[in-house]
Amino acid sequence: MSLIDQLVEGFARLPGIGPKTAQRLVFHLMKESPDEARRLARAIKDVADHIRPCSRCGNFTEHDLCAVCSDGRRDATVLCVVEEAYEVSAIEHTASYRGLYHVLGGRLSPLDGVGPEELRVAALLARVRDSNGAVREVIIATNTSVEGEATAVYLQGALRPLGPKVTRLAQGIPIGSDLEYVDGSTLAEALSGRREM
Amino acid sequence: MSLIDQLVEGFARLPGIGPKTAQRLVFHLMKESPDEARRLARAIKDVADHIRPCSRCGNFTEHDLCAVCSDGRRDATVLCVVEEAYEVSAIEHTASYRGLYHVLGGRLSPLDGVGPEELRVAALLARVRDSNGAVREVIIATNTSVEGEATAVYLQGALRPLGPKVTRLAQGIPIGSDLEYVDGSTLAEALSGRREM
Repeated sequence: MSLIDQLVEGFARLPGIGPKTAQRLVFHLMKESPDEARRLARAIKDVADHIRPCSRCGNFTEHDLCAVCSDGRRDATVLCVVEEAYEVSAIEHTASYRGLYHVLGGRLSPLDGVGPEELRVAALLARVRDSNGAVREVIIATNTSVEGEATAVYLQGALRPLGPKVTRLAQGIPIGSDLEYVDGSTLAEALSGRREM
Repeated sequence: MSLIDQLVEGFARLPGIGPKTAQRLVFHLMKESPDEARRLARAIKDVADHIRPCSRCGNFTEHDLCAVCSDGRRDATVLCVVEEAYEVSAIEHTASYRGLYHVLGGRLSPLDGVGPEELRVAALLARVRDSNGAVREVIIATNTSVEGEATAVYLQGALRPLGPKVTRLAQGIPIGSDLEYVDGSTLAEALSGRREM
């Protein structure tokens, strides 16, 4: 296989990139200066070589602790539990959360053979237990899929004996959407979770 | 800037990839095994280091001559002139052309400062001239944009004194499209270029 075909195949393995797009990317890189392509190759290699999970929360980092965990100004009394490390950056972008995180590394999915042992559940429980009451709230921010909900219920049961308040992200109507386009289960959830104004 | 942000920015510089998609690609690479990412980095670097224009036709190649030029079974009496090297593979995929190619490296565009000297026009004329009549037909396959058409007309004028027949790709209704959805200028072109059945 030629070098070009190898690279097309490499790009096409990425999510959301089909063979046509992969070819366009390769031709773009070949049209640009080779330095531009080498820079991209170097950036990919750097990430592969140096990015690893934060030893405390599982977020991506170049160091032992991630930027959030090593920031002394964060509120250590609140933990936000997410499925994947990239969800941390989604929450960080809102700039409305000042606590710490815990990355599970997935969700419970018995059919796929993913139980609590496959996730960073024990590390979460140990973090809460070893804080001796310092962690006062755990926000479960797993997805609203069936597996995400099941994971949330499981974590709630496991965390309750340890003392912290366990909360779940609010579910309801997304900001800016029309009622008539919101699906039924979201609308039902929004109704049952209505708040006094 | 963190290594992750650097890579997101690198991906986002590629055509058709916005910041959101770039982030998704980076997270995918981090979730995959680092070896997978290193393989992609290596493939990009290999292409940047080893792919260059064919010394005869300008097509992409790892060697001095491209696969088409070094294939003795190709019909050397016909040259197909394209704007960009990636258009060669589009024509090759049709499996209905057995001649050779010539890549211009762009199209005439006086407003952007692209004249015949910026393209591989002199090389094309030299190829035809030095063939001593062996090149009997030059197919102009520049795009149907205004610049592509102007380039085709310019090349026709430059090639005519050298003797070969100069042809242009047929313009008309794409296979499988409905007449009512075809734009007016394409329909007019298809009418004026109608063929006896």
